[in-house]
Amino acid sequence: MKVTKKIVLEEHDMPTRWYNIVADMPNKPLPMLNPTTKQPTTKEEFEVLFSKGAAEQEFSTERWIDIPDEVRDLYRIYRPTPLVRASGLEKALDTPAKIYFKNESVSPVGSHKLNSAIPQAYYNKIQGIKHLTTETGAGQWGSALSIASKHFGLDLTVFMVKVSYEQKPYRKSVMHTYGATVIPSPSMTTGIGRQFNQDYPNTAGSLGMAISEAVEQALNQPDTRYALGSTMSHVCLHQTIIGEEARKQMEIAGDYPDIVIGCFGGGSNFAGISFPFMRDNLVNGAKTRFIAAEPASCPKLTRGQYAYDFGDAQGVTPLIPMYTLGHGFQPAAIHAGGLRYHGAGSYVSQLAHDGYIEGRDVNQLDAFKAGILFSQAEGIIPAPESTHAICVAIQEALKAKEEGTEKVILFNLSGHGLIDMASYDRYFAGDLNNYIVPQELIDENVNDLMKL
Amino acid sequence: MKVTKKIVLEEHDMPTRWYNIVADMPNKPLPMLNPTTKQPTTKEEFEVLFSKGAAEQEFSTERWIDIPDEVRDLYRIYRPTPLVRASGLEKALDTPAKIYFKNESVSPVGSHKLNSAIPQAYYNKIQGIKHLTTETGAGQWGSALSIASKHFGLDLTVFMVKVSYEQKPYRKSVMHTYGATVIPSPSMTTGIGRQFNQDYPNTAGSLGMAISEAVEQALNQPDTRYALGSTMSHVCLHQTIIGEEARKQMEIAGDYPDIVIGCFGGGSNFAGISFPFMRDNLVNGAKTRFIAAEPASCPKLTRGQYAYDFGDAQGVTPLIPMYTLGHGFQPAAIHAGGLRYHGAGSYVSQLAHDGYIEGRDVNQLDAFKAGILFSQAEGIIPAPESTHAICVAIQEALKAKEEGTEKVILFNLSGHGLIDMASYDRYFAGDLNNYIVPQELIDENVNDLMKL
Repeated sequence: MKVTKKIVLEEHDMPTRWYNIVADMPNKPLPMLNPTTKQPTTKEEFEVLFSKGAAEQEFSTERWIDIPDEVRDLYRIYRPTPLVRASGLEKALDTPAKIYFKNESVSPVGSHKLNSAIPQAYYNKIQGIKHLTTETGAGQWGSALSIASKHFGLDLTVFMVKVSYEQKPYRKSVMHTYGATVIPSPSMTTGIGRQFNQDYPNTAGSLGMAISEAVEQALNQPDTRYALGSTMSHVCLHQTIIGEEARKQMEIAGDYPDIVIGCFGGGSNFAGISFPFMRDNLVNGAKTRFIAAEPASCPKLTRGQYAYDFGDAQGVTPLIPMYTLGHGFQPAAIHAGGLRYHGAGSYVSQLAHDGYIEGRDVNQLDAFKAGILFSQAEGIIPAPESTHAICVAIQEALKAKEEGTEKVILFNLSGHGLIDMASYDRYFAGDLNNYIVPQELIDENVNDLMKL
Repeated sequence: MKVTKKIVLEEHDMPTRWYNIVADMPNKPLPMLNPTTKQPTTKEEFEVLFSKGAAEQEFSTERWIDIPDEVRDLYRIYRPTPLVRASGLEKALDTPAKIYFKNESVSPVGSHKLNSAIPQAYYNKIQGIKHLTTETGAGQWGSALSIASKHFGLDLTVFMVKVSYEQKPYRKSVMHTYGATVIPSPSMTTGIGRQFNQDYPNTAGSLGMAISEAVEQALNQPDTRYALGSTMSHVCLHQTIIGEEARKQMEIAGDYPDIVIGCFGGGSNFAGISFPFMRDNLVNGAKTRFIAAEPASCPKLTRGQYAYDFGDAQGVTPLIPMYTLGHGFQPAAIHAGGLRYHGAGSYVSQLAHDGYIEGRDVNQLDAFKAGILFSQAEGIIPAPESTHAICVAIQEALKAKEEGTEKVILFNLSGHGLIDMASYDRYFAGDLNNYIVPQELIDENVNDLMKL
């Protein structure tokens, strides 16, 4: 046995704090703005929609934030997660690169999303909230918030993007098993949902639309708050437990990554694996590269505008300083439902603007091809979202082979694809395409934005 | 944090040997018989169908059998698996019992089946075999053998029980992703398949039928062997890694089980969790109880006959001394496809006959109810098969509560149910029933058997 395959940590090695990267950013992100007054959004405004705990963290500039005991208690169901040496993939590629991945697919819902669902449900619970609403794309976030809500005794309504609701019926069943209510979006349940259905009668739905619906319902119901699965700074914060664990594990492995890769929807799993290592770039002058793997059909970092834009499709959230394709942008119905989001979180956007993060577009067919190679080499069938990160890891490993360098590559396996097998079926059947966004579609959606 | 949630082992703590319980059995099982000559089956006869390695182990009386390095190497993708304290379930039941489960669902195919698939593929590979055939019920075994075959460069054809092929399409997709060929059984591909289709035109299929097809194809193709996913002694042997790990982990936890529970199809996952602890009963006079949780619709241990019977539906395998419902018995189309098998392996049968194992029947609806309680309490949605073990664990935990005793209960979570969500959907929709087998159906199928 040549290399250790997995680095596992004991429960007592689980990090006790999340890392808040804003404390170390050389250029702080611009504030979110109230869309009516154009003044910076206040924490109090934020608390109308989110839990007090989430609001506190969204505005915090503290470097380290303690993870509550009740949250760590529930994290222990699946955390710490393994760091795995992708020795099978290295062999298949015949590369001198060392490839590691953090296996977040071992969580009971099969993805990293529980890392934020647990604290978000917890902060609502201790505040006395009774009901939560949320959106979900592929269903990973909705599944995660369902089990966390059940644990803390909260009712949950999930607006699930229609195309995913149809493509991934099992995710809906998972949410039902955990006791949540699931509604395909755009729905006829909310005012804005009815409006979307009228304006775009054949729409596949989008995360932006589902967010608008969930926000409307949260604002119109007593004792209700909204919870978001990505993008916001407090969500990215919660996900840093991934990278903090990975730091310890890489140290045990005796390696340090030259390149860190995550797939990119709103940015939270990417932030989770990246920020704890990026600290060394910001503070110690390390030169690690951070690559955000986004779908070519939704290329906010590589082809979007850095501007103030809304987080939802209707335009009710605060204006966020973000790389965006415009909140009216409707991404093609690719199977990586979790990556179909028009914008990037403000911390990630500022860091990308400052050159700490590279975006890279990945075509759908290349992503599936990478996912199948990975499945056969490592045994784990990845989620369609995660195949984007794998694809970039393979590109970099092949580049290292060309150059004859022993690069250390780390990527986040954000989730497994066992509930996404219908997507693999369609790939094998030759039913899937690449979707390259026409420039005019981007232009028309970002034209009116307040550029930064 | 009151109790340690998970006991994890390092890779170097993984057992290096499988435990062969036959060495310690007070009454050795009767030999398998050649159905034509009625003489004991020889190892050479066995090698016509199975790999030499499997044949060697099937007939071995050695107590310990070394796990080859190449097998341990691949085990490390997911092993050692965690031992988990079911503290959420204990709380939900308000029981003084301590409940532990071994989490075999963390394997990339979501179940314990890889534990035998890897060595079986390996032994075929080193012997120069090119093709494998097998059967699968719910698809767990087929998925496992697919990835193991891919790793060792073997072609694989899987005959999948028709009802599962239709109920669980994602499992078929998993096998495709790993490169296997999947055929619904009974098929028109084999002679016996065509015969079954003619004799039982509306059959849901059965494991026994699928085995007959896989055996026929293996015998009629060059460089081909057959691999079986349960029942046989070499399969039970491979699964003992579950219990050997669990012994180390229970020791770390500072507990020893009073009751060990596994769901029961052919017996391999049950043997896997049980045999290493049963050694203490056989050798040291320990009094641990071992409960085999079988579906009420396929009750071989509680209502079957102890007799010589065939392993397949057609009657081509050796005669096996087993608890059986008759090889012609066609179980109802319950959703725990992996438990729809008419017989029990010979070691388990002898041990049950000698009073070391209790069978317990579980109704389908009780099993699903237990599975949902477990999902909400522990976060993991169990496979329909595993819900049978959970149901018995709950029964025993509630009994401990009644008696006010602090029993230590250990069960094997053989797999997760993320690919079985359609079954949960049907349960929630009220579409599922209990199936209690009429006595005359058992009687007519065991009437002609050679009783023991």
